[in-house]
Parts: sequence; C-alpha cells; structure tokens
Amino acid sequence: MTSTVIVDAMGGDFPLNVPVQAAIDLCNEHNDLNIILTGSEAEIKSVITGRIPSNFSIVNAEDEILMNDPPTVAFRKKQNSSVHKAVELLVNNEGDAFFSAGNTGAIVATAFFKSGLLPGISRPALATVYPSATFHKLIVLDLGATIEPKPENIKDYAILGSAYSFLITGKEEPVVGILNVGTEENKGSRLVVESAELIRKATSLNFIGFVEGNQIFVDSCADVVVTDAFTGNIALKTVEGLNETIHTLLKSKIAPPKWGKVGSFFFKRIFGETLSKFQYNLYGAALLLGVNHLIGIGHGKSEETAYKNAILRLKKHIESQFIRKFKEKVDKELQGK
Amino acid sequence: MTSTVIVDAMGGDFPLNVPVQAAIDLCNEHNDLNIILTGSEAEIKSVITGRIPSNFSIVNAEDEILMNDPPTVAFRKKQNSSVHKAVELLVNNEGDAFFSAGNTGAIVATAFFKSGLLPGISRPALATVYPSATFHKLIVLDLGATIEPKPENIKDYAILGSAYSFLITGKEEPVVGILNVGTEENKGSRLVVESAELIRKATSLNFIGFVEGNQIFVDSCADVVVTDAFTGNIALKTVEGLNETIHTLLKSKIAPPKWGKVGSFFFKRIFGETLSKFQYNLYGAALLLGVNHLIGIGHGKSEETAYKNAILRLKKHIESQFIRKFKEKVDKELQGK
Repeated sequence: MTSTVIVDAMGGDFPLNVPVQAAIDLCNEHNDLNIILTGSEAEIKSVITGRIPSNFSIVNAEDEILMNDPPTVAFRKKQNSSVHKAVELLVNNEGDAFFSAGNTGAIVATAFFKSGLLPGISRPALATVYPSATFHKLIVLDLGATIEPKPENIKDYAILGSAYSFLITGKEEPVVGILNVGTEENKGSRLVVESAELIRKATSLNFIGFVEGNQIFVDSCADVVVTDAFTGNIALKTVEGLNETIHTLLKSKIAPPKWGKVGSFFFKRIFGETLSKFQYNLYGAALLLGVNHLIGIGHGKSEETAYKNAILRLKKHIESQFIRKFKEKVDKELQGK
Repeated sequence: MTSTVIVDAMGGDFPLNVPVQAAIDLCNEHNDLNIILTGSEAEIKSVITGRIPSNFSIVNAEDEILMNDPPTVAFRKKQNSSVHKAVELLVNNEGDAFFSAGNTGAIVATAFFKSGLLPGISRPALATVYPSATFHKLIVLDLGATIEPKPENIKDYAILGSAYSFLITGKEEPVVGILNVGTEENKGSRLVVESAELIRKATSLNFIGFVEGNQIFVDSCADVVVTDAFTGNIALKTVEGLNETIHTLLKSKIAPPKWGKVGSFFFKRIFGETLSKFQYNLYGAALLLGVNHLIGIGHGKSEETAYKNAILRLKKHIESQFIRKFKEKVDKELQGK
C-alpha cells in the first residue's frame, strides 16, 4: 500500500528548508510514500534544488500562522494557512496523516473544529511515548492540547491513552495512573483527586491511582500516565533540558584533546545509546489523540532527523490502520461502561 | 560560634537509625555543632550503639506523624509530635535551625502556625537550588508547600526567591521568571498570566516574564524560577527519576566484567562529578522560606549522606546569619515598592 503524509512546510523554528529537504529525501528513499507539502508554493519551490520526486507534491497556502498567534485567531482568521489546508486534505481523504512542527494551539483548534472529536470524547490530547530504563513504553498525555482541563477531560485522556497503549504494546488492559505529588489518595490538587474518582466511577480501565514524577522513568508502574497539559509540558521540557545538560557536561569532560581515542571510544559506546533514548528528535511526533484523523505534532525545534522520524512513524501507523483500530478500542471502552 | 540544629528523628522513609547515626557522626566530627533530636526518647536510645557525644541531646516527643496524615490533622491532633517539639524549640530560641525528612504538609502547617509568616508575606514556599551545566545557582520554588496557590502567593515566592538568590550568589538584583509552557505573554494558565501581571505591578524585582521547563538547566536565563507546588514538585521528581535512570543505564553498560579497569576508570572520572550534580542527596534540604525560623525539609528517601549534607548546610546558614539577612532583604523589597 502507498501512504500519503501531509507535511506543514511553514511550521516550527526552521520552516521551508528543513521540512522540504526531509520530505524530498524520504520521497526518494520510499516508493510507497507520498508526501504533500502545504505552504507557500513559491517559497517551497525556491528552496528546492535538484529534481523533484514524482511522489512529492505541493498544495499552496498563503496565510502564515505565527508561533504566538492565539489558537482561535489562527483558526478563524487564517483560513488559508498551511495547517488549515492540511486538515482539509485529511478530511477530504486526500491524505492519511498530517505532521506539523508548528503552533500547537493552532493545530489543535483546527483539528478540533475540522476533523472533529471522536463520539463520547470531550477533548483531544497530545500524547507521546516516553522511553524508560527497561525499554517499557510509557505513554504520557496531555502534553499541550488543553492548559486547564476538567476532570471529565482527564478521564477521557485515560481512555485515549489506554487505547494508544493497547495498539503499541498489545496489552489488553494497560495500567493507567494520574501524575500527582504523592501516591496517597488524599494528596494533590482538586483536579487530580476529582479526576481519580471519575475514572474509577465512569470507566472500566485498569486504573491504579496516582503516580509521582520520578516513577515516570524509574518504575514501570504504569503504561499510561495522564496529566493536565501545563504539568505535562513542563515535565517533558524539563527532561529535555536535563538531558541536553548532561550531554553537554559529559562531552566537555571527554573532549578528544583531553581523553584521546580511548576516551572517545568509551564515550560513544556508553553514551550513544543511553542518552539518545531521551532525545525528542528520535520520537519526532506526539500524536493528537481524540480527533478523527491521524495528526502528529513535533517540537518547534525539530530538525531534519526529527521530521523524518515523525513522518516514518506516521507512515507505520497508516500501514497498521492505527486510526481505525484506535477508534474501535475507544468505542469499546465507552460502550463497556 | 556554636550552632544548634534540631533534627526530626521520626521523619522520612528511614526514621531513627538513619537520622540518629548521621547526628552522632556529625557531633563527633564538629565541636562547634550541637544536635538535638526530637522523637521517642526510648526508641532513639534503643538504636544508639557506643558513646553518646556531649553535644548530642534528645527531646522526647511521643506522637507519630504518618506520611499520609493531612497537614491540619498532624498539626492539631498530634501536638506532641517530633515536628511540633522541634518548632517549639526554635520559637523558644533553644535551637537555630530544624531539619526533617518527614511529612512536608505537616511541617509546613506547623511552621505556618507556630513560627509564623514574615510580615507582608502571604504564604511560605519550599525552595531548592538546582544545579546547572554552567554551575549557575538557580533557585526554584515552590516545591511543595501550597498545592493551589493564588497569584498573590506566586508574587511572594518571587520576593522570597530573589532574597534567597541574593544571599547565596551576592547578586543585588537576581533575575526572576515564572515557569510556563511558553515564553509568549499570552500563553499559559490564568494563574501564571495573572501572577506575571502582579509581579510587574507590585514589586521592583528584576522580572523577565516566563521561562520554559528546558531552560531550567540549559540556559542561565534566570536566577529564580517561581511556580506552583504541584508543577514544581513534579518537575523536581521527574528530574530525579531521569537522573537515576540514566545512572542505571550507564552503569549497566560499564559493569566491570564487561569493560574492565579502563572502563571503570572512565566511568568514575566522567560520571562521578557530572551525574552527582543532579542527585538530591547532595543538596540535602530544601528551605522553607517565608517563616520566621530556619527550616530545612528533606526528601522522604533521604539517607545518611542526605541528612549530613542538609545539617551541614543549615549550620553554614546559621553561621552566616541567613535568617536575619534574609528578613532584611525581604523587608527591603516590600518597603521599596
């Protein structure tokens, strides 16, 4: 089968050059992949050097969404943006998935209004797979779709996360927890206490209650951790910052002039694998769960590798019929209770 | 001068043995340090082997605060607890500082009611010093005193953090930021948006607006980062978890049988310093800022090294007259505006 991934050429900190180059490389490498770039056709063409692959195409979109445009402004006033066009293509079945490293709020608002929510789901959520020491795949959501959710939304995140975990791990009843400052039932904000009650009452999920920040990595106590977007985003970015810092510190200690070839050898063997586990560009895209189409959102800083990994991840999900199976699993949970 | 540190013998995951041993060792090593342990005298005595140093004493307290006791229950119903006794000793000037690795909520409530808030300050906050790649000392607060603060409280954290930063770095006008999901003014929760407005309006602090999670470590863009306790606690614990995980992964790759002596040499030289920078037991105690006395709170998991580092840190603060200077700096900021 051939998969069609739509890519926002205008999003992120490195628009045009980076997404265009990633797309052309991937089109050359994969015969079973079509890529449609949305954005200013003239600008996209201006950065292409060499032959354009036949499985690469452009859909023109002139409006520019800025990183600090409020979501509803981006959605209502910029109806000819690269994000708008991309979601329209999805809705018209002219593409199977969409990836952008652009303004998250704008993408979420556009997806919310144009792709629409799954029946029974109150809010979409941005989910990512966290690596762990034991190669356990942990899903954390929401990372940025809704800054101030209600318990009802958190309950839905638990359903969405559980279905996602099932699809990538095969576990029929993944363990779900809520991120909190303690594991005791009486600890935490009203939001987490009320959300826990609601998940217990309104779902048949395999729910274990609260998990703490350190358990995200150290214990494999949960397959899915739900949280509000504020907390989720800060936890994710803090990890990113710490990882970069450790990397920098270690590299500064083992610079070749200081440690020679032996040091370099150890550095690469030991760190290459370990620290890269925690680098966001390996994962590329977080999935926007809860809408009717397959949408991946990348880090603003995404470079070529991140774009490529994200697009290839979406291609895999298309091939495995992720969206159809995901909807079925969510529906089963909603019907089951 | 001789400093007197009061230590809670009953708090944390390893009560009695760990704090008692840490205290006795320190008393033997430091002539200019008195340590008073609060807790069950009989139980404390039962774990002491060998000679009791003359600068070590016990104040009996029989009530036991459990880790999941709600703060007000611990404060009102357990008036003969080790925490209660300790704060009483502080208030009566029988000690200069107090350290506990126990129930944070109980310690905060007891300090709030018995030590009392500094004039003009609405809430105390738990602050710690984060290490960074550049050896820049970054202060983050609140990490656990108030789960759902108001903008007024966040504004006070900015004042407290700024005074703390001044005392440990000497910078007259430390740069203060609020932790948020983006740096743009219109991004984030109502709490952070309103807090930013209030800090701008009601203080003369050197305030730069929002900082993101990754900037905690990577950039030295701020000296003080303020946040609500929920977010702060989760960011701190996530860092702790990631650090432990990286440590475990790296160690598993360089176990002596696999890499031999050369590998071990590089492991120790490279990691010893780098990763330990991010281990909480080096810092030992977070300070409870905003009350009238010097109080340090440790991680529940604190082991002997953490206790010792925490007590020695408090000893230094006593010697440098931290509390008097801190109050003066806070007062200056409050008067100045």
